[in-house]
Amino acid sequence: MKSKPSIPKGTRDFLPKEVQSRQYIFDTLREVFELYDFVPIETPAIENLSTLTGKYGEEGDRLLFKILNNGDFWARASDEAKKSNDSTSILPQISKRGLRYDLTVPFARYTVMHRNDLSFPFKRYQMQPVWRADRPQKGRYQEFYQCDVDIIGSEALLYEAELVAIFDDAFSRLRVPVVIKINNRKILQGIAEVCGAGDQFIPFTVAIDKLDKIGESGVRELLLSLNLTVEQIDDVFKLINIVELDELFGYLDLSNIGKTGIEEIRQVQNFLSEHKFNNKIVFDWSLARGLSYYTGCIFEVECPNVKIGSIGGGGRYDDLTGIFGLDNISGVGVSFGLARIFDVMRELDLFPNDIQLQTKIILIAFDDESHKQAYKLLLQLRQEGIPSAIYPNPAKLKKQMKYANDRGFPFVGLIGKNEMENNLVTVKNMSTGEQESMNLNELIAKLR
Amino acid sequence: MKSKPSIPKGTRDFLPKEVQSRQYIFDTLREVFELYDFVPIETPAIENLSTLTGKYGEEGDRLLFKILNNGDFWARASDEAKKSNDSTSILPQISKRGLRYDLTVPFARYTVMHRNDLSFPFKRYQMQPVWRADRPQKGRYQEFYQCDVDIIGSEALLYEAELVAIFDDAFSRLRVPVVIKINNRKILQGIAEVCGAGDQFIPFTVAIDKLDKIGESGVRELLLSLNLTVEQIDDVFKLINIVELDELFGYLDLSNIGKTGIEEIRQVQNFLSEHKFNNKIVFDWSLARGLSYYTGCIFEVECPNVKIGSIGGGGRYDDLTGIFGLDNISGVGVSFGLARIFDVMRELDLFPNDIQLQTKIILIAFDDESHKQAYKLLLQLRQEGIPSAIYPNPAKLKKQMKYANDRGFPFVGLIGKNEMENNLVTVKNMSTGEQESMNLNELIAKLR
Repeated sequence: MKSKPSIPKGTRDFLPKEVQSRQYIFDTLREVFELYDFVPIETPAIENLSTLTGKYGEEGDRLLFKILNNGDFWARASDEAKKSNDSTSILPQISKRGLRYDLTVPFARYTVMHRNDLSFPFKRYQMQPVWRADRPQKGRYQEFYQCDVDIIGSEALLYEAELVAIFDDAFSRLRVPVVIKINNRKILQGIAEVCGAGDQFIPFTVAIDKLDKIGESGVRELLLSLNLTVEQIDDVFKLINIVELDELFGYLDLSNIGKTGIEEIRQVQNFLSEHKFNNKIVFDWSLARGLSYYTGCIFEVECPNVKIGSIGGGGRYDDLTGIFGLDNISGVGVSFGLARIFDVMRELDLFPNDIQLQTKIILIAFDDESHKQAYKLLLQLRQEGIPSAIYPNPAKLKKQMKYANDRGFPFVGLIGKNEMENNLVTVKNMSTGEQESMNLNELIAKLR
Repeated sequence: MKSKPSIPKGTRDFLPKEVQSRQYIFDTLREVFELYDFVPIETPAIENLSTLTGKYGEEGDRLLFKILNNGDFWARASDEAKKSNDSTSILPQISKRGLRYDLTVPFARYTVMHRNDLSFPFKRYQMQPVWRADRPQKGRYQEFYQCDVDIIGSEALLYEAELVAIFDDAFSRLRVPVVIKINNRKILQGIAEVCGAGDQFIPFTVAIDKLDKIGESGVRELLLSLNLTVEQIDDVFKLINIVELDELFGYLDLSNIGKTGIEEIRQVQNFLSEHKFNNKIVFDWSLARGLSYYTGCIFEVECPNVKIGSIGGGGRYDDLTGIFGLDNISGVGVSFGLARIFDVMRELDLFPNDIQLQTKIILIAFDDESHKQAYKLLLQLRQEGIPSAIYPNPAKLKKQMKYANDRGFPFVGLIGKNEMENNLVTVKNMSTGEQESMNLNELIAKLR
């Protein structure tokens, strides 16, 4: 059966240039993570649905990719489910596994399962694809890479500083100029408490989180709908705009959790004061981070040069592994938004030129004899560690040159009768068009 | 809900050491592939079932992981299928996507879909996981990496030599001693023809392929069951054991395809004669390769030091993209058996020591003041590009030393009162137990 092939909506094929550009990001990040004493782990793409379900909210459960049980799945479903005629009842009967939805829940599971093999604080990084059955649209895919860095099993605030340093270091190496924003959920909670929203912290955070999108007037409306008075809302905006930590401390005098938050930020600042950063570090009490499992410091990274939203973020969570039965393990971690970083780097033209085609030269010959000579030369270049190519047969010059052009080799090495006789190769620079003849050693020197 | 977490049978979590060891193999292979002018591509894990089904035989179709359609999948199934009460009829109604089963079929699909963006000959490598719902057992997983290298769009036999060179180069760098076996399916077919099995080539190949497992007597029985006479079977064994190509050529005089095969091997040998190989290259006319889509040269790599079967293989196929409507595109490619290579390298202890924990030293302090000093030192080491760690707080010495031991840092840097005063650090070599005090510059020199 011959059919016109296609791939599922929301998935992508990657052309060589894209793979190599992304590989450059991966390699750079890996180098930074290992400089800071993080080690890599990997978890399977396929997880039990019992691990995944209920961890990402109702919407998340819907977006999980479920894998059909193998073999005669229908025979093994209960009669009750079959009779129900209802997807929700049938689903658990015919599917018990799903695809990884993020790296956080698998990391929590991993930590619980392997806790006796790990030394705590356990510092891991993980770069793997995840799958979400989201409606595909521009920039949103059903299969995409995530990159997480976490420290689990320590409450030390030194790690908050370490993660800020990793953001700064990684984005410096990638040459992406960023602003790193820091807040502490406890400060936000303190502000909520002293402004009369202490018992509505989650919706309060959700409202504050929208400041960037809907502006102060929009947030004011949301807070009004939480039954805050105009005076209380004025206080909220006064407090989130205070710069001096000591001043804010005074206002939060009646909130113990608020004061703890400020104390934590002070300690983080102490560590940070030892660093020399390349990027801007900003403390922003309006930073909220939508996800509700953060309990301490939170981070967000933006590239002010490109309108694309945050390209990194994270925070401290007090009880990630609790869902799998291991309580009171504090952790702190950040994610790099790989897809957006890729887009930002492409937009700002930050990928080095030499990360793509590694091959320096293609050798071209005109007949069987010169092709044999070219093949010998090829082996010598490769022996020297110089990535090199040869056109596989002495085809017409035009055809060979077209291939050289299309592939984008920086140099073409021509071997004809004259070159054969004098043991030379004529090297054409494909960007300038210049040609010169040289021997093997000169060629090696040129291509190095 | 708290439940004891687990992962599906046949899947694996990877501990840091395993990820790093595998990464070392990946990096080494990538370097070799790019030296030989291959470029990377990636395809999605999720493919349409229309792409995958029918490409791997009945058994393969059964082993495909199928993904349940999202949303209210049951409502969208046909009444006919629902009434059938039969998995086979229901399946296509509730699942239209599956997980990648190998890298070959996706590569064929990719080539057809992107043929206008590619330059032929297109030389690609691909290292990605695949999924098979095989019964899990020792050394056999449902999720595992494959690594394929192919040239598509050229009949040039130069590429056969190039792939042999890649095997030799890659395994030399990994320090795995191998034997690379070469044959040509056309020679096998020639032998089949002159020995009276020309019309039963596939079962003939299957029988010959079992020589390693069931020995000559076993193969003789199989050939007898194909109705070959004892004399014909004697001829088969005589021919596959001939060393001289010219002698074999004489015996295959009546088989045009056999003579073409010999001519092809001669050309490959011409190219190979220009190389200096580190490993043994063997021409073996009994090499058959089970898979039936090979049509020309075939390869197999074994490590004679370890009983594990082939750790690499491949061959030429005349019509891989035909299934997707693009005919007459010849290709040749090889696979590296990553899981087995990993096992061989572990068994032969070939992983370099320095590929695992990159971190050279952990700094340990005794009180808040010395911890602050240690933190400054840490930043200086990292500034110098030396992967370094610090225990996050000045805990009890015993606790810190246990962590240092468990993690396997080569050095521990201690900073106490005396070191503080003299701006020194006492460095303990964790394998010898030796201790010495030094300043920052001496430490940097030591750790480089």
